[in-house]
Amino acid sequence: MSSQSITVRVPGTSANCGPGFDSIGLACTIYNDLELTLLKEPGLSITVHGEGEENIPCDKRNIVWRSVRYLLGKAGRDKEYRGAVIRMRNHVPLSRGLGSSATAIVAGLKAANVLIGNRFSRRELLQFATEIEGHPDNVAPAIFGGFTVSTVTDGRVECFSFMPKSRLRLVVAVPDFPLSTRKARSVLPAQVPMKDAVRNIGKAAMMVAALCRGNDRFLHHVFDDALHQPYRARLIPGMYDVFAAARKAGALGASLSGAGPCLIAYTLERRHCEEAVGKAMQDMFHRHGVRARIFTLDLDSRGAHIVNKNNH
Amino acid sequence: MSSQSITVRVPGTSANCGPGFDSIGLACTIYNDLELTLLKEPGLSITVHGEGEENIPCDKRNIVWRSVRYLLGKAGRDKEYRGAVIRMRNHVPLSRGLGSSATAIVAGLKAANVLIGNRFSRRELLQFATEIEGHPDNVAPAIFGGFTVSTVTDGRVECFSFMPKSRLRLVVAVPDFPLSTRKARSVLPAQVPMKDAVRNIGKAAMMVAALCRGNDRFLHHVFDDALHQPYRARLIPGMYDVFAAARKAGALGASLSGAGPCLIAYTLERRHCEEAVGKAMQDMFHRHGVRARIFTLDLDSRGAHIVNKNNH
Repeated sequence: MSSQSITVRVPGTSANCGPGFDSIGLACTIYNDLELTLLKEPGLSITVHGEGEENIPCDKRNIVWRSVRYLLGKAGRDKEYRGAVIRMRNHVPLSRGLGSSATAIVAGLKAANVLIGNRFSRRELLQFATEIEGHPDNVAPAIFGGFTVSTVTDGRVECFSFMPKSRLRLVVAVPDFPLSTRKARSVLPAQVPMKDAVRNIGKAAMMVAALCRGNDRFLHHVFDDALHQPYRARLIPGMYDVFAAARKAGALGASLSGAGPCLIAYTLERRHCEEAVGKAMQDMFHRHGVRARIFTLDLDSRGAHIVNKNNH
Repeated sequence: MSSQSITVRVPGTSANCGPGFDSIGLACTIYNDLELTLLKEPGLSITVHGEGEENIPCDKRNIVWRSVRYLLGKAGRDKEYRGAVIRMRNHVPLSRGLGSSATAIVAGLKAANVLIGNRFSRRELLQFATEIEGHPDNVAPAIFGGFTVSTVTDGRVECFSFMPKSRLRLVVAVPDFPLSTRKARSVLPAQVPMKDAVRNIGKAAMMVAALCRGNDRFLHHVFDDALHQPYRARLIPGMYDVFAAARKAGALGASLSGAGPCLIAYTLERRHCEEAVGKAMQDMFHRHGVRARIFTLDLDSRGAHIVNKNNH
């Protein structure tokens, strides 16, 4: 019996970017690869290499498999393909705020979609991914690449993606402890001061405008947040000190990556300060008793894409 | 004794633009002119033609005069010039949400600044104007023109201004009743639901990104607001019906202009629907017992500028 396999590559992502809580995200140059083979007969073989190889469930609970099933169901092809071989090669750390679950969802949807003949557009994949993940802020950049602004209106997701004119680099400090998004969400209030909402609106809009137009001068105070970081600070020892250390070493600003615990600093490429920023963040974390790895990344401009396609 | 006079022209403005509460504003092609002559001797002569000629105080309470004094004080020149001749020719309706008080402040600052030799930059004028007005969302576009995104961080004002790539037109319905900003602010809550804040952040950021890049497709749902309009709706009979009528007639969307009661609809020039939109808004207001004038305007790209300078 003939079968087709496909390998897709999906970037890790950082949501919120400071003021853009649950709205703004970015894709970065750290990737998870998924090789998917759809089988007509039942049976599931899942192997994981790299990040998460000891934690990711390799049975029907697997999020890649569930996303594949979701897409096949939407296409009415779920009776036709009842099994799969899934091979994951992961570089995105798990439960750190770099969108590892979004990469799995997007990889499953994208790979299955290609194998059934690209039935759905990227906008439709975004809709499905948001339905699975619950919010669009990581799945949107994982699909489209670049910076993304997402909205949900009456359940319908819209996403605007763009590559900024400013040449940014990203310095990510990855602490050695995980933090579940559920826990990081549970500390947030249902109501917030109007003045904090206004503050974030202004900074989010200025960030996006300055990035779109390449006006670096306006990027110095836009990565602040008043809506979620203050409440999450107690979950991440030394968070604000690490932000301050990154700025002092030359970064434009820094923020929680998604729900954390990763912290991400934004630097201008022409300043060549990534190394100093990374060291400053690592040292400051260390002073708070936290060991952290440092990744220096670029923006990913492509989003999820095919790297290999084979007919057997 | 020699004296110098200057005439400056300042655009009316519309703040908030839907989701950008207290952050985003725009300048439009309706203007107030101020002719200012500074006098070394005490004495104040103020005349007003056009909008507000029956309401605007023509004594020391006059906001143009107070702004002139503010700037002279900042420059240490307030002992030197103790009087003025102020002639205002106004087209911006008063207390309707088109920034008439911002035009007066900006006109006074700008004209006085020119007469003392442009001592201050536009950024400094923005800082002064915000200190006088209390918030930057009208004074920023009045100074810089175009769309503006403003933030206040520790009292320091930043403003990013841009002309959108999309060719927009503005249809403004001006009801025949005034509404004080103070009253319109008094109905707002101090706390708002987090989900409403998130909604506005996404829409404000998407509006700005789509305008900067000229992606009109994304402008269809970005002029909504969840933070202030719902609370102010009861002050403006038929508000949401007028919004719906504008959209139905071809507008991208509509919003309260500032604190109201003006409503402003955003249309794409290439659709040529301004007339239909204006009529639809006027008719719907009428069904709610409100008589309204309609202005069809463009974005102003210049902000406050000199139109005449004379030496006597």
